[in-house]
Amino acid sequence: MTKRKIINDPVYDSFLSIDDPVILSVVEHPWFQRQRRIKQLGLTYLVYPGAMHTRFSHMLGALNLMGRALEVLRQKGVKITDDECRGAKLAILLHDIGHGPFSHTSERVLVDVPHEEITLLMMQRINKEMNGALNTAIEIFANRYPKHFLHQLVSSQLDMDRLDYLGRDSFFTGVSEGIVGTDRIISMLNVHDDELVIDEKGIYSVEKFIISRRLMYWQVYMHKTVIAADNLLLNILRRARELNLSTFNFELSTFDLDRFAEVDDDDIMVAVKHWQHSDDATLSTLCRNMVNRRLPAIRFSNEPFEGVETDYFHGTGQLHNRSYDFNDQEIKVLYKDGRCLPISEASDQLDRHFLEKQVTKYFYFYPKANV
Amino acid sequence: MTKRKIINDPVYDSFLSIDDPVILSVVEHPWFQRQRRIKQLGLTYLVYPGAMHTRFSHMLGALNLMGRALEVLRQKGVKITDDECRGAKLAILLHDIGHGPFSHTSERVLVDVPHEEITLLMMQRINKEMNGALNTAIEIFANRYPKHFLHQLVSSQLDMDRLDYLGRDSFFTGVSEGIVGTDRIISMLNVHDDELVIDEKGIYSVEKFIISRRLMYWQVYMHKTVIAADNLLLNILRRARELNLSTFNFELSTFDLDRFAEVDDDDIMVAVKHWQHSDDATLSTLCRNMVNRRLPAIRFSNEPFEGVETDYFHGTGQLHNRSYDFNDQEIKVLYKDGRCLPISEASDQLDRHFLEKQVTKYFYFYPKANV
Amino acid sequence: MTKRKIINDPVYDSFLSIDDPVILSVVEHPWFQRQRRIKQLGLTYLVYPGAMHTRFSHMLGALNLMGRALEVLRQKGVKITDDECRGAKLAILLHDIGHGPFSHTSERVLVDVPHEEITLLMMQRINKEMNGALNTAIEIFANRYPKHFLHQLVSSQLDMDRLDYLGRDSFFTGVSEGIVGTDRIISMLNVHDDELVIDEKGIYSVEKFIISRRLMYWQVYMHKTVIAADNLLLNILRRARELNLSTFNFELSTFDLDRFAEVDDDDIMVAVKHWQHSDDATLSTLCRNMVNRRLPAIRFSNEPFEGVETDYFHGTGQLHNRSYDFNDQEIKVLYKDGRCLPISEASDQLDRHFLEKQVTKYFYFYPKANV
Amino acid sequence: MTKRKIINDPVYDSFLSIDDPVILSVVEHPWFQRQRRIKQLGLTYLVYPGAMHTRFSHMLGALNLMGRALEVLRQKGVKITDDECRGAKLAILLHDIGHGPFSHTSERVLVDVPHEEITLLMMQRINKEMNGALNTAIEIFANRYPKHFLHQLVSSQLDMDRLDYLGRDSFFTGVSEGIVGTDRIISMLNVHDDELVIDEKGIYSVEKFIISRRLMYWQVYMHKTVIAADNLLLNILRRARELNLSTFNFELSTFDLDRFAEVDDDDIMVAVKHWQHSDDATLSTLCRNMVNRRLPAIRFSNEPFEGVETDYFHGTGQLHNRSYDFNDQEIKVLYKDGRCLPISEASDQLDRHFLEKQVTKYFYFYPKANV
Repeated sequence: MTKRKIINDPVYDSFLSIDDPVILSVVEHPWFQRQRRIKQLGLTYLVYPGAMHTRFSHMLGALNLMGRALEVLRQKGVKITDDECRGAKLAILLHDIGHGPFSHTSERVLVDVPHEEITLLMMQRINKEMNGALNTAIEIFANRYPKHFLHQLVSSQLDMDRLDYLGRDSFFTGVSEGIVGTDRIISMLNVHDDELVIDEKGIYSVEKFIISRRLMYWQVYMHKTVIAADNLLLNILRRARELNLSTFNFELSTFDLDRFAEVDDDDIMVAVKHWQHSDDATLSTLCRNMVNRRLPAIRFSNEPFEGVETDYFHGTGQLHNRSYDFNDQEIKVLYKDGRCLPISEASDQLDRHFLEKQVTKYFYFYPKANV
Repeated sequence: MTKRKIINDPVYDSFLSIDDPVILSVVEHPWFQRQRRIKQLGLTYLVYPGAMHTRFSHMLGALNLMGRALEVLRQKGVKITDDECRGAKLAILLHDIGHGPFSHTSERVLVDVPHEEITLLMMQRINKEMNGALNTAIEIFANRYPKHFLHQLVSSQLDMDRLDYLGRDSFFTGVSEGIVGTDRIISMLNVHDDELVIDEKGIYSVEKFIISRRLMYWQVYMHKTVIAADNLLLNILRRARELNLSTFNFELSTFDLDRFAEVDDDDIMVAVKHWQHSDDATLSTLCRNMVNRRLPAIRFSNEPFEGVETDYFHGTGQLHNRSYDFNDQEIKVLYKDGRCLPISEASDQLDRHFLEKQVTKYFYFYPKANV
Repeated sequence: MTKRKIINDPVYDSFLSIDDPVILSVVEHPWFQRQRRIKQLGLTYLVYPGAMHTRFSHMLGALNLMGRALEVLRQKGVKITDDECRGAKLAILLHDIGHGPFSHTSERVLVDVPHEEITLLMMQRINKEMNGALNTAIEIFANRYPKHFLHQLVSSQLDMDRLDYLGRDSFFTGVSEGIVGTDRIISMLNVHDDELVIDEKGIYSVEKFIISRRLMYWQVYMHKTVIAADNLLLNILRRARELNLSTFNFELSTFDLDRFAEVDDDDIMVAVKHWQHSDDATLSTLCRNMVNRRLPAIRFSNEPFEGVETDYFHGTGQLHNRSYDFNDQEIKVLYKDGRCLPISEASDQLDRHFLEKQVTKYFYFYPKANV
Repeated sequence: MTKRKIINDPVYDSFLSIDDPVILSVVEHPWFQRQRRIKQLGLTYLVYPGAMHTRFSHMLGALNLMGRALEVLRQKGVKITDDECRGAKLAILLHDIGHGPFSHTSERVLVDVPHEEITLLMMQRINKEMNGALNTAIEIFANRYPKHFLHQLVSSQLDMDRLDYLGRDSFFTGVSEGIVGTDRIISMLNVHDDELVIDEKGIYSVEKFIISRRLMYWQVYMHKTVIAADNLLLNILRRARELNLSTFNFELSTFDLDRFAEVDDDDIMVAVKHWQHSDDATLSTLCRNMVNRRLPAIRFSNEPFEGVETDYFHGTGQLHNRSYDFNDQEIKVLYKDGRCLPISEASDQLDRHFLEKQVTKYFYFYPKANV
């Protein structure tokens, strides 16, 4: 009897059912299980209490969508072998495995290695352990596989990663503005000249997807209070490093994959709780503020803040967001008559002017008391 | 014991609970009950089978939202008397009562009186029957009431009508792209200088609302097949009128409110079924096509169709949509510091260029066989 | 290029995608399209305004579930040929095609032929038109096909019909108590000794399904006010028949399938509106009450009402509901160790005592005024 | 300007809006914020990956429901003063504040004080800090307040605690079987002779609530794999205690509220990770199994397991569940005619036989390898 795992995912009505033994092995791997202890949205739960969901659940969600996408493409006559199917599924399943705790923040202080690189290192190690079962997956992930569209399903402006996280983050934060017509977009996927494209009928759904992503940026990902909390954690980690207290620093030259894989959100939070009792007044104050959610005040502006203090309690920074990236490959629309146009030409409303527009915001955070 | 009516509405989690005897009387009025037999989206159910919802349910839904909005405004310190509350509720409850069957279509053939005018006539008649209980409601509806913002809750670019129908149409069609953060928008409403405004924090939700409305336009309200079906019905009604078969024609000079109030969707569809057996080959063919859902083929284009046939089976037309109407009063955003800016200035992304853009499409429909 | 139809269904997250040309032809058949004009729940919309959904949408929804169920069974190794797949899909698609308007009510006055019989007649006629394409479907529907479990998917205590209508009616009425874990139940289906069974893990979901069905009975299907409305319509049709006004009577001896197929909800409602102006005072009063939703008062009791008036305005009746039918084939649970037990033995809680219990209620309706 | 906090809760469509300064202070209290780091369902996320929701979100959700319930009761004419409103809200807000990490498990090893007692101690300390602002809340919580029904809203068979957690746990696990008609139940609440009762019309919703709770028991709360994981953690904590490694032990005689309040889920998980490297082979093996989710196998039976090994890797236990507790005060139904009956008499289906039935299951867990 085949082993089969059925996993409930509140985001999608349908169950995720896994019976491929290779995929099951990967899901059971300690490095994959570790992602149960890393929240997808870091400190965002301090603003949206529901946002406790993990990278583990996102990676399984992306796998779910990949399965559906491959099925749709096959039904439309796109040739995809069973080995390629498994490869694409494993690639999306593992695409975030290199993330460390609070990676948004920690990459700037703790870890001197980009998470994409760590992901590849981890995939290679798991591949060795599994005698090459991930060969195709790694080729697809690294964009070296001949059928280019498979990589695009994993990483492009319309990949299964983004489709899942937008829907998932929207679901768990309760920000209904981010809801995406996932099912419709997937049913409209197609392949044309080895490129992932969207059928003509899906054009409004893709417009909506681009807009939703932008709205989620400012309403969730770059929410003022989240940025304030991120900066508080950043300064805690900086101060701890300066005092040689942190054991979470990783550098490229001495990078130890196994040690890295042991660190998760829990370790950071326990250290922060511990450092509340530090002799260093700066560190202990910062940590007490974090533990008890006394976050800095923060102001946003369209102009840079100048001549303001910066220390462990005050600071500035900038954020920017563009709906869409022209440097990246454009999303393309396939018409019934065979034409294939980039969305910036196909869309009546989301023209180049709109899509190119980049919004930059500057912020200044400071202790709440002395406003 | 007070009489109380609790009505289930699948669109909103919360029940609609009515205990105001005046509002209950209006809901029980035959002209209001008649709206149970008029579908909100006319022939759209031929494309989206779930879209059978009625104007009756929309009018109650808008009442529900109005109740919540008035409560939010009062909690923020806006002075609204009990009489004004009832007036605003009655105004939104009755705002669509003048609609006839398939009014989108029928106003062009059958009824020579705009539905807004019929609505006012009906409100006045009900008011007389109820000894003036609708006085305030009519003032608010007709925008003659001193507190201007009450009218804006009933009719403006951000009124309870639009908030309800966008959410409702999205729910029943299953087009998740149209989902609006209704609850969030309502919780962000405010009044400034007697104008309905939105609190600063609600800006992204309003952006999303504008975008959703535009997407619903092309994905639902002006869906190709819906336009094809509308034109088929239009030509049936035209032909029947020409043959002096239609009893549904209403003209301003002889307008009879009571007779008008007897006609609903069912009458039109039964007539169409009946005319399938007409001696007139044109009419009978058109009617059989409608009853059996053999809809015309249709093409959309950015340029007008020229030199094409137009008769009862072929025709052209144009559609246009703008996200937002500058002629109308602009949606305004109220900042914490007291400034109040139109959304076209307040929004980083939905600038004037975007908001002003009007999309016009031309269509040509023709029998499916002879493509 | 294959023709493909994608249909939005708000009840399920996933689209219904049809590309089988036989199934597409059946969906396009006038008799199938006619079901767009027959509401699934008759007059229930007078209590739950959202309940305007049609038999058309239910039949497509059941098709959707059948597709998923067949896929699950195949993945578990159950042998189902492509012809059987199509047959089971067509059987469920057409299982309700013989329903007339308000069939709950009309079968008692208008139509002297049970709807199951009409369904079979219609399937046979369509089969003839389509040169035998429905042969397997008819065998499955009529329970003459060797693989018995295929019929059970169409008609049994756990069939795709019930699964769809419970979820659908719950969705459109907004009665969340009726929500069923459709997806979970389907994923737990299996076949054992040519019988449709449920895997051990699905036992709680089946318990919930039985309970939900019972709750929907009293909260929706036999809601007091719905019963009152049904009886009002019943008496209208009776009176009209007596006066030889009705053209909707069908008898077995002279049954005319084509004429029957022309009648739908709209005809009944238009006749009722027309009869408001009848010379017969009884009929015109009843009809005005219906059109303006002045429904009779109604009382329920555990004992029969005795010695009460019965005429066109007063009457009695009885309703009964059992959670589960022992005369029907029992739902069976398949254990990992190979045992297969009826749910009445497998369930810890829903024992025979619970499942056998039948609830009977008696009602008496009478004009609201003279209570 | 009043300070106001608006909190998104994905479980409910409506926002939680708090503007009472006392409630805001309590929410900002470090002991309340600490509940952000304690998961509502302990290790259940190992089976249902979505179940990462915290006690913090549950306590706010219960506050939300309490606000709605008080409003409904006031609208029905029940006299509730503003002080009582605040008291009831604070009581439900704090009803779970004494929970420690994995309290289901830890109360059996770590903490020798029942969580209800700790809750009361914490409420009293916060009350002292806030100069008696919690006086009424504590009276209500401890069931010493004259208006008894206020305590019943906080703790009874139909309290806001259960209503929230059933809905919440169902939402985050994705087990749709647990969905409760929360809004309907709340709208049907009433008070009769100082007792919380349910209006006649709400009887089916209460039946559904009782059933849902039971189903959630076996499908979620006592899911086999969750029980296996709980027992693994239990044995880790036992072994660590034996080795004098645990710093999480609390006894009544020396109970230190401040130290207790510093411990949360993160500390336990970091300790478990740390103990993977213990010299004690038993402890290190157990901990590696936990971290990498290598859970014990487990079997359930209706009979006790006898003659089986019990050590740190094998063990037995029993679970029981009754739908409903007759020792507790029964849920009562208020009829329109003034009668008030316990649900066991009012319900046609959930009779005493059903409600009294208690299900007991026995389990045996053991290492997966040597089955």
